[in-house]
Amino acid sequence: MDTPELIRKKRDGLVLAREEIFDFIAHYTRGEIPDYQASALLMAIYFRGMDRRETADLTEAMLRSGRVLDFSALPAAKVDKHSTGGVGDKTSLIIAPAAAAAGVLVPMISGRGLGHTGGTLDKLEAIPGFNPRLSSPEFHRVLESCGLAFGAATEEFAPADRKLYALRDVTATVESIPLITASIMSKKLAEGIDGLVLDVKTGSGAFMQELKNARALAISLVNTGAAHGKRVHALITDMSQPLGNAVGNALEVIESVETLKGRGPRDLVELCRELTAHMLVLGKMTDSLDEARARYDSAIASGQALERFARAVVEQGGNARALQDYSLLPQARYEDSIVAREDGYVAALEARVMGVASMILGAGRDRADAAIDPAVGVVFEKKVGDAVGAGERICSLYSNDRARVPWALDIIREAITLSPQPVIPTPLVLERVLHSESVVTPTERIVEL
Amino acid sequence: MDTPELIRKKRDGLVLAREEIFDFIAHYTRGEIPDYQASALLMAIYFRGMDRRETADLTEAMLRSGRVLDFSALPAAKVDKHSTGGVGDKTSLIIAPAAAAAGVLVPMISGRGLGHTGGTLDKLEAIPGFNPRLSSPEFHRVLESCGLAFGAATEEFAPADRKLYALRDVTATVESIPLITASIMSKKLAEGIDGLVLDVKTGSGAFMQELKNARALAISLVNTGAAHGKRVHALITDMSQPLGNAVGNALEVIESVETLKGRGPRDLVELCRELTAHMLVLGKMTDSLDEARARYDSAIASGQALERFARAVVEQGGNARALQDYSLLPQARYEDSIVAREDGYVAALEARVMGVASMILGAGRDRADAAIDPAVGVVFEKKVGDAVGAGERICSLYSNDRARVPWALDIIREAITLSPQPVIPTPLVLERVLHSESVVTPTERIVEL
Repeated sequence: MDTPELIRKKRDGLVLAREEIFDFIAHYTRGEIPDYQASALLMAIYFRGMDRRETADLTEAMLRSGRVLDFSALPAAKVDKHSTGGVGDKTSLIIAPAAAAAGVLVPMISGRGLGHTGGTLDKLEAIPGFNPRLSSPEFHRVLESCGLAFGAATEEFAPADRKLYALRDVTATVESIPLITASIMSKKLAEGIDGLVLDVKTGSGAFMQELKNARALAISLVNTGAAHGKRVHALITDMSQPLGNAVGNALEVIESVETLKGRGPRDLVELCRELTAHMLVLGKMTDSLDEARARYDSAIASGQALERFARAVVEQGGNARALQDYSLLPQARYEDSIVAREDGYVAALEARVMGVASMILGAGRDRADAAIDPAVGVVFEKKVGDAVGAGERICSLYSNDRARVPWALDIIREAITLSPQPVIPTPLVLERVLHSESVVTPTERIVEL
Repeated sequence: MDTPELIRKKRDGLVLAREEIFDFIAHYTRGEIPDYQASALLMAIYFRGMDRRETADLTEAMLRSGRVLDFSALPAAKVDKHSTGGVGDKTSLIIAPAAAAAGVLVPMISGRGLGHTGGTLDKLEAIPGFNPRLSSPEFHRVLESCGLAFGAATEEFAPADRKLYALRDVTATVESIPLITASIMSKKLAEGIDGLVLDVKTGSGAFMQELKNARALAISLVNTGAAHGKRVHALITDMSQPLGNAVGNALEVIESVETLKGRGPRDLVELCRELTAHMLVLGKMTDSLDEARARYDSAIASGQALERFARAVVEQGGNARALQDYSLLPQARYEDSIVAREDGYVAALEARVMGVASMILGAGRDRADAAIDPAVGVVFEKKVGDAVGAGERICSLYSNDRARVPWALDIIREAITLSPQPVIPTPLVLERVLHSESVVTPTERIVEL
């Protein structure tokens, strides 16, 4: 193939043919197109975008570069949820068992955290013995017996994405709606699902800080699902402050289990209920979102969601007693707290900074190969909108390395804003982009990121 | 250095600092920045452009990546001419000795031809024995004794340009005004010159087919010269038909020598007179272009220009008798001709196609490492605007490989347009962009190329 001509075509704003996109991905994945041509094409795509058809073709080409799971022998609908990444986002641990308890199958394949955002695998591995590296037959067996299974994204799935993502990361070509779309959807469609709920975060702690960019991505994701015959619902949700109260792996496991026990924080419960409800609608358990919300509540109230989670933990080698006795989870040695200097209302808890502080304490990684400490993190006792009195605690830091604490304390203090006036927090679910056969909206590149 | 951040900065339309540009070129030339990051940056520059200061800094960084000649010990002004490439463009062989005869020094370093455009070195090497690969002391000696010397561009000069150009060629990032500017000017400024005349071609046979792009490039080149304290004049000239009558290396040597003898074709003489006149003005031999034109005419009429050329040929190992006895130059075995089928006026001789036809006959190369046949080519007996009678010859093809002739004949015939009405040819010199301390025009990327 004539790669310079392909680059020139996209550079000049023309639409690439399906065959050209497939050829590029096939040759690139096999190492027959050098990185320097791929990165020039990626930058041209950054500037020129891709239309709906090109994005769907790119997704399919990347999807087909690797294995695709097939659960068609299992009778129930297969539905997954994917988040674009946030701080304190532990919804997967709650909604996978809740949706499974309500009747859909949830083959959930997750990644690890990087930078200020956490990863589902890191949280699950805080449970002693838990193993997310299941073979394909094991994954299938756990999914069938529990209604859910937690797997690790491996290089078997969409290897083209793995190679392209590594290149985008070092060539400033990450922030492109069609490239993000193809990266997410190629991996999710490889899971053999019927429907997908996307949690597209926006706000200071999100990848898409601007609502208009989050909206454009949500539309592109939903359209690309539709192009592959998959129903996709995208919720655009606020990530200006951490989700729930806990940030840090074992701390988030505890908060997830508490939520499964009906004692979760208000914002986390609300988002889990909304995401699960959409999964149940996509899985055709009901047409009514209100009815689906009631089924989430009932899965929690009946204890069935917790029971499903415990079963999956056991099946995947984890110690389920830790879900009752939290002292069996990794424990931090030190606790420090930040208290209010005066009376007021919490006006901001900058999500990105809180994620970075948690990473500094050891809960996250700044490089893909860095080790993490599952015990450490931050727990907020006040969230945006809450009243706080002088001397009252706003948050606690859990640490094992004293040397890191002053730095984390300093940046967290800077990221807390109190207001003398009452504050009304941003709504959690900002917008919804739902699957429709008639959605035709051109994808765009991200503006003002 | 943080290369992704540098790429992001340009991608987002920001201006790169001088230090960032120098760091990038230094690290890239040493192989410390991989091609995949360089190509992403080049594509970002393609879309975002560079301002006058960035372009000047890029030029300087590339210039400093290699050797810079120093002729400051020679008392006369050093002035060179550079063309962006055309078909039948043999002006270097004429104006270097003409300008030298009129008192400036011409350290002319040239390249080889590629594609439909010819190269000065290929033409000179058609003279038996001629050697353009002079050592630095040899080049200096020839320049001092003849007032001119013909050298070959080697990897000593601006190695960053050599590496970047090879990358641009395969990543569709050639057509960018700041990148073209830095590529040309980094090599020309390495010649240690005081002034430079640029022949920016436009029209079907030129790299810049659109006048507006040629104008933008001319402005950028002149500005970049000024930023380095060098006076640059750019002439934008027509390349819709071949320049002069001959296309092909030995054939062009003959036409050049005939021009030095005062018997050149009208258009070639006009352009040589204009380019030389600007060189003399830049070399401060006179302030008046009319006076400078008269000095060109006198250098030709007196035989001094021819004498300078013959001396340089001898000094560089060539057989100067071939300048009197053309049978000592390589001879083609076969001659074919194209005649007019009806009376009319020549309306078009598509320059690009004529260059390709000449390449098919063996006069040029389609790959940088291909061999060429110095004897073959095309000679036009009619040019645009000339009247031609039915049966009268329009051009002759000189060849050594009969198998290639029918193909060349076919495409040349297609590229000749006759009109029943009289035709007025395009003026040869379309615009002039002259050095001025106050020129401040932003450089742009090429549009609609």
